[in-house]
Amino acid sequence: MADVKHTLSESDIPRSWYNIQADLPEPLPPVLHPQTKQPIGPADLEPLFPRALIEQEVATERDIPIPNEVREIYRQWRPTPLYRARRWEKEIGTPAQIYYKYEGASPVGSHKANTAVAQAFANREAGVKRITTETGAGQWGSALAMACSFLGLNLAVYMVRISFNQKPYRRGLMETYGASVTPSPSSETEAGRAVLAEHPDSTGSLGIAISEAVELAARNGGTKYALGSVLNHVMLHQTVIGQETAKQLELADAEPDVLIGCVGGGSNFAGLSFPFLGRKFRDGSGPRIVAVEPSACPTLTKGKYAYDFGDSAHLTPLIQMYTLGSGFVPSGFHAGGLRYHGMGPLVSHALDLGGIEALAVDQIETFSSGVEFAQAEGILPAPETNHAIAAARREAMRCKDEGKGRTIVFNLSGHGHFDVQAYMDYHAGKLSAYEYSEAEVADALQHLPEV
Amino acid sequence: MADVKHTLSESDIPRSWYNIQADLPEPLPPVLHPQTKQPIGPADLEPLFPRALIEQEVATERDIPIPNEVREIYRQWRPTPLYRARRWEKEIGTPAQIYYKYEGASPVGSHKANTAVAQAFANREAGVKRITTETGAGQWGSALAMACSFLGLNLAVYMVRISFNQKPYRRGLMETYGASVTPSPSSETEAGRAVLAEHPDSTGSLGIAISEAVELAARNGGTKYALGSVLNHVMLHQTVIGQETAKQLELADAEPDVLIGCVGGGSNFAGLSFPFLGRKFRDGSGPRIVAVEPSACPTLTKGKYAYDFGDSAHLTPLIQMYTLGSGFVPSGFHAGGLRYHGMGPLVSHALDLGGIEALAVDQIETFSSGVEFAQAEGILPAPETNHAIAAARREAMRCKDEGKGRTIVFNLSGHGHFDVQAYMDYHAGKLSAYEYSEAEVADALQHLPEV
Repeated sequence: MADVKHTLSESDIPRSWYNIQADLPEPLPPVLHPQTKQPIGPADLEPLFPRALIEQEVATERDIPIPNEVREIYRQWRPTPLYRARRWEKEIGTPAQIYYKYEGASPVGSHKANTAVAQAFANREAGVKRITTETGAGQWGSALAMACSFLGLNLAVYMVRISFNQKPYRRGLMETYGASVTPSPSSETEAGRAVLAEHPDSTGSLGIAISEAVELAARNGGTKYALGSVLNHVMLHQTVIGQETAKQLELADAEPDVLIGCVGGGSNFAGLSFPFLGRKFRDGSGPRIVAVEPSACPTLTKGKYAYDFGDSAHLTPLIQMYTLGSGFVPSGFHAGGLRYHGMGPLVSHALDLGGIEALAVDQIETFSSGVEFAQAEGILPAPETNHAIAAARREAMRCKDEGKGRTIVFNLSGHGHFDVQAYMDYHAGKLSAYEYSEAEVADALQHLPEV
Repeated sequence: MADVKHTLSESDIPRSWYNIQADLPEPLPPVLHPQTKQPIGPADLEPLFPRALIEQEVATERDIPIPNEVREIYRQWRPTPLYRARRWEKEIGTPAQIYYKYEGASPVGSHKANTAVAQAFANREAGVKRITTETGAGQWGSALAMACSFLGLNLAVYMVRISFNQKPYRRGLMETYGASVTPSPSSETEAGRAVLAEHPDSTGSLGIAISEAVELAARNGGTKYALGSVLNHVMLHQTVIGQETAKQLELADAEPDVLIGCVGGGSNFAGLSFPFLGRKFRDGSGPRIVAVEPSACPTLTKGKYAYDFGDSAHLTPLIQMYTLGSGFVPSGFHAGGLRYHGMGPLVSHALDLGGIEALAVDQIETFSSGVEFAQAEGILPAPETNHAIAAARREAMRCKDEGKGRTIVFNLSGHGHFDVQAYMDYHAGKLSAYEYSEAEVADALQHLPEV
């Protein structure tokens, strides 16, 4: 039988997360206090996060042990399979070998469960009773809702209003797990009320929803905040993906030439690629690594590498990252998880250091690639994931043109069972290939904070 | 680590389907011609099905080899995991051990993929270019749409109108795989036009949709028909579930006391239980086996074991089965896959022979059990599957009352990612615990055909 699926046994679930901070040729720029603009210390983050996660945020050890109880929960869906896309390869006639790591195997259908469980566990261990968070498309919110249900925590979710309206079923899922879900901007917070006063019809943004969730946590003692991407500890938790993939490629006797992941805040991309990138930083070996973003939110390809706020109300610390400006409100395209104005500092730093490449793809190309993939492979990908698929297809077609049989690996970060409306809009010709222009970027970047 | 997941290697995917007809203490009653009322032969079915499937329908060998290409496709999601529901056990405080076989692991999220691939393959081998079928909730239609896409066949689906309206996303999924989807009753067929003439607002039924699909196949030479449940060859294909489960329970060192599956036409139930039922027929050993149906469509618990048509327009042969009458149009409750008026002849025969038990559960109990399960185990079950979960919960609570630690195994036939509206309706208190009454049953059964 030809090899289509590479499975590992449960003993192959990693016992530690891989921390790329141990292998960076230059350390990350410091995080600055939003008022004083001076480097902050761990204590400044304690109103928002439990100590264990703050320690992971700044850790420099290469291997951070995964707590037993977290690993025990991972066993429900990990190790996830690595597939060879044989039918798709045949369909597009490429000599390339295409592999995909299937993170849609988690009960909530995406990679977000990996960090949700780790974060809920750290909060419960610290005696926290309630968590607040934001969600865009709802992948993160539903993953955290499930994790909080497993670990006995309450959860309040601020959901970007356009997604709240477009994706009622993600909300229904979160509520079934027992979470409360509020459309953002809301009138529950100062941050939300300020936005609504100026833009009563605001469709929201991740930056606004973060402000609301952070505000609620900061003013309630027993409540902490959780973020589903961007931060270092989130990237860390996702490295189970890349560690498993490395083992599976070895079993398949395959050496990857290029690794591909879609990026919003960057966590599924980092999860797949950082274990490989670390080796590249250490000894210069390893595959090309490509981060793929929407042309409607081109943070890495058109944004600026600068200090900026993580939220619209400027409650968060200042982080050096690729950004489109914290006031960025993207057009309503169908990849809600990729609409953040910034990019995780580790992914930004990796691009700045030349360790990775970035690529922007428009919505028509991503959906056309996703439909072709679904027809060949059966799995309906999330709209976010379609960005990785479109980039993998470009690489595969280049192999065809050049007659080269390279090995392409991408992260199928989540399935699209909650995103069928987007596919129906695509079939009906309702989607546009909108690109955020240089002029719009220049305008948005005028308001970066001075540091 | 405690055992939560029991996985098998790919070499453990069964090499043959298990055919319970080899082990029946009495053979199935003959299938009769709709006009002559005489037993029909294989040739009578050739307008509708390829010869390979007709041979499987009447086969009496115990093991029917699975074609290599079908087994190759199964490898994408098989063997599916068998889980121990440890968090749920703890939540409800039962001394029982509860296991569930997770068929939601297929790309379309249900067990239907097992037979869809087998049927599409048999049709393609026979040179068929197009298939017609019906679908209720859409699990079967989407599974067959995926299988047809894999194997290069065209597919026309008649979807029960109430589901077509309630579940546009199932339709979107089928269309993404390349199928055409028509709400039933439609004006495309004589059968559909006849229903619409009498009931212009008909919400449809599986019986009507079957009539439409069969009519289209019967009048087009190159077109065949496919059914997602009820028939013997469909039960046969699903036995990969039970064969894997038997191996996994052995690995877990567990002896099942009771096996549970929800039933509409009966195929996921048969898939899990028939390998065990066959042993019971051979040597009297084995677990109790419970088929669970909705109290709003109580085919096994209130219907009659009699000859009846499979469809509303009386185009199909007459089959002896438990039935509520082929004119039965169920109320619009939220388990579209369990609304068929009849029951697969093998499941009906097994009940008549005393090999299995039947139980009806109402919608409130099924959803309350499903929500509790989702919060504990993470997987959101399909509304159909919630019937099996409710019955498993009853067994587990009985264990608690009696202080007995029995082993309960149920089939988690599919996930509910396309059914969140039903959960939202449940949370909003919109669902009723409607039971189809004895008087309604007596009325519906007045029109059974005379044989």
